[in-house]
Amino acid sequence: MKIAPISGFPEWLPEGRIVEQKVIDTLRSTFELHGFSGVETRSVEPLDQLLRKGETSKEVYLLNRLQGEEGQKSKLGLHFDLTVPLARYVLENAGKLDFPFKRYQIQKVWRGERPQEGRFREFYQADVDVVGQGELAPHHDIELPLVMVDAFSKLPLPPVVVRASNRKLAQGFYEAVGFEDTESVLRIVDKLDKIGPDKLSEELQETLGATEAQARAALELATIRTPDASFVDKVRALGARGDLLDEGLEELANLIEGANSLIPGAMQADLSIARGLDYYTGSVYESTLIGHEDLGSVCSGGRYDNLVEAGKRKFPGVGLSIGVSRLLSRFIDRGLVVPSRKVPACVYVAVNDEGERPHAARIAQKLRERGIPTDVSHNSSKFGKQIKNADKRGIPFVWFTTSEGEQVRDVRTGEQVSANPETWMPPAKDIGVDVQGVLSHE
Amino acid sequence: MKIAPISGFPEWLPEGRIVEQKVIDTLRSTFELHGFSGVETRSVEPLDQLLRKGETSKEVYLLNRLQGEEGQKSKLGLHFDLTVPLARYVLENAGKLDFPFKRYQIQKVWRGERPQEGRFREFYQADVDVVGQGELAPHHDIELPLVMVDAFSKLPLPPVVVRASNRKLAQGFYEAVGFEDTESVLRIVDKLDKIGPDKLSEELQETLGATEAQARAALELATIRTPDASFVDKVRALGARGDLLDEGLEELANLIEGANSLIPGAMQADLSIARGLDYYTGSVYESTLIGHEDLGSVCSGGRYDNLVEAGKRKFPGVGLSIGVSRLLSRFIDRGLVVPSRKVPACVYVAVNDEGERPHAARIAQKLRERGIPTDVSHNSSKFGKQIKNADKRGIPFVWFTTSEGEQVRDVRTGEQVSANPETWMPPAKDIGVDVQGVLSHE
Repeated sequence: MKIAPISGFPEWLPEGRIVEQKVIDTLRSTFELHGFSGVETRSVEPLDQLLRKGETSKEVYLLNRLQGEEGQKSKLGLHFDLTVPLARYVLENAGKLDFPFKRYQIQKVWRGERPQEGRFREFYQADVDVVGQGELAPHHDIELPLVMVDAFSKLPLPPVVVRASNRKLAQGFYEAVGFEDTESVLRIVDKLDKIGPDKLSEELQETLGATEAQARAALELATIRTPDASFVDKVRALGARGDLLDEGLEELANLIEGANSLIPGAMQADLSIARGLDYYTGSVYESTLIGHEDLGSVCSGGRYDNLVEAGKRKFPGVGLSIGVSRLLSRFIDRGLVVPSRKVPACVYVAVNDEGERPHAARIAQKLRERGIPTDVSHNSSKFGKQIKNADKRGIPFVWFTTSEGEQVRDVRTGEQVSANPETWMPPAKDIGVDVQGVLSHE
Repeated sequence: MKIAPISGFPEWLPEGRIVEQKVIDTLRSTFELHGFSGVETRSVEPLDQLLRKGETSKEVYLLNRLQGEEGQKSKLGLHFDLTVPLARYVLENAGKLDFPFKRYQIQKVWRGERPQEGRFREFYQADVDVVGQGELAPHHDIELPLVMVDAFSKLPLPPVVVRASNRKLAQGFYEAVGFEDTESVLRIVDKLDKIGPDKLSEELQETLGATEAQARAALELATIRTPDASFVDKVRALGARGDLLDEGLEELANLIEGANSLIPGAMQADLSIARGLDYYTGSVYESTLIGHEDLGSVCSGGRYDNLVEAGKRKFPGVGLSIGVSRLLSRFIDRGLVVPSRKVPACVYVAVNDEGERPHAARIAQKLRERGIPTDVSHNSSKFGKQIKNADKRGIPFVWFTTSEGEQVRDVRTGEQVSANPETWMPPAKDIGVDVQGVLSHE
């Protein structure tokens, strides 16, 4: 039996899973605190749905029944994000949902990448979106990134900064300086971090026939980054004028000011953000973890005026998505976030001999009834060995039935005291497993 | 855009998802109370792993990259249960796990069934297993089903009865009455519920060449069902004798008596249980929900002496599995289990006019900081309409900023009182969404 990890399909040891579960729980409870409903969609979508937006076709995993007819082409693929499923879910259930529909979704997605690239082919994504029917007020553009800021602030991770730009601002600016194919400009500017300013200028001129001045203007726009609405003056100083540009500037200024008035320092304007390939129509967001900028954006999204269109019905939305597995992979693999113990049990009930196992099981039952996670020793070896078994799992307390009655020992201090299984409580901090960042908040 | 459900891939509205999530949370917290570690394995396994046990080959979904080379055969399939992944995970990580390894796993599994059959092709399974290295004490056969009994007792579902038999008992009995191919007897007896006793007797005689007396003995064994260890005498009364039979009788008697001494009435002996196709070697379990016997077994499992074999290393285990989606599908679809409201929000903050939205957002912030799930009205329509918005989502409280200060209104009673957003608390029962069985415990 050959056993080996499969590239791109991450899996954790139980300790790592405790961290992942804790992060997912924290995201979920934060999203619910903000009034978002949890949704879980099936893992598959019809292939034509998955390919609707083009570009991503290369990343789809198709499903085929092993015993299906030979030559029969699959029409189902695994979803590669949670936005395509959301669009379909909203349309399918529009008559039964309350709009604006606030939903969060934390699920695995799959990308049929070539295995060699060391990319994730299966990973958790955590999305929050609000979807309107017909219209969606601009204040949701402020609400959504702040949900993510609140969520990140509760994770055992370094602080996050959400940066925002605006598609109308960029497009309006490019139009004003004379670009025609503004989509392509966005796509090229999106590569700024990868290829640098010189290459970028070159590509704009060569691919799009831009003048040197136009290329310089596009570059100058992309370098504007301010902690407040002062980007407006900086853009104006570049000289471009236009209605779409004005609209974008106003939207972004309202977003940055509105967000920072609720959570000071939560957001910055960063006009380098293009999110070139996506279908955003207004606000766009990216987020960086301080000290881990090389991870790239850990939480991204934006406003889309048409999540779905069905005849005359329009469903605009705004949302952000966290690539949970990619993020955690760094922190779990490097041991930067660790659980306080390896197992859920807080108490380990020792067993004197197998004849007394039912008594030990009853002690455990009583502790569990009061919410204390409890394991019972799997054998009745010498007490020293049973204490060692607890200790190597990080279980803080061992329960003994002695000739002097029931006793509980704190494995960390060696202190052993008499205890009643119907009333004894461990310190609150020891009941559940705590998850802590090791270096993250230094 | 054609939008339709895909047969076999269940999906819930947000209300249904609240129920599903609650059930999953309850299972998880119970499993952790009993000291089981959560594990999540990748969704795919190499095809040769999936096909190792035969028989299930027809149910595998293969993955193919849409852009993969034509003619290249897939070597990855989606897992169809959580036992094959557990076996692989244990072997892959044996050096890093503590044995006995107690793990729970709640994940989706996929079965590549033909779509016509109306079967589930994607569904949640919840498994608990304990796996030993080299050996595994028999007391775990008592521990594992009781974990499930404890879990079910906390679910908003009707009471469950776990029934057990023993593979050695059945095999020893069949051998003693003269059957040679005991595997085939098990497989045929497993169909008792489906085909009835007459057909069964016929099939045993026709397929296996059994005498009428042998067929009758097999049938008589299968009708034995006792709430305690009295099945031993009933089996003895059938006249068969043998070492393997004795061993099985003793194991099952210890199991039933041990379990019922800890949770009276938790388990029954039911010698009709064969679980024919599985790889169990000792205890076997099935469970029925009272009043929903037609669902069949909702939680099944058993003891396997060889979960994995790798050279000389042996990993025996015992575990049970709940088919969560199949179970919930009945209770959600029939409205037998419902949430106390449709959304997580407990408070809905009204907005006087858009200029005062930041004030409303700050009220919400203060409530959330104290753990109260809060939504803010998406518009500033008339108060009556905002109250209606809250009411149709089932949100119990609406917060108003009035000329007389901050006030909160209980939508259910219409009572409105002055409140401070930094100290006001809703009744504890209203903070989270409660999930209740409607008819289940009548």
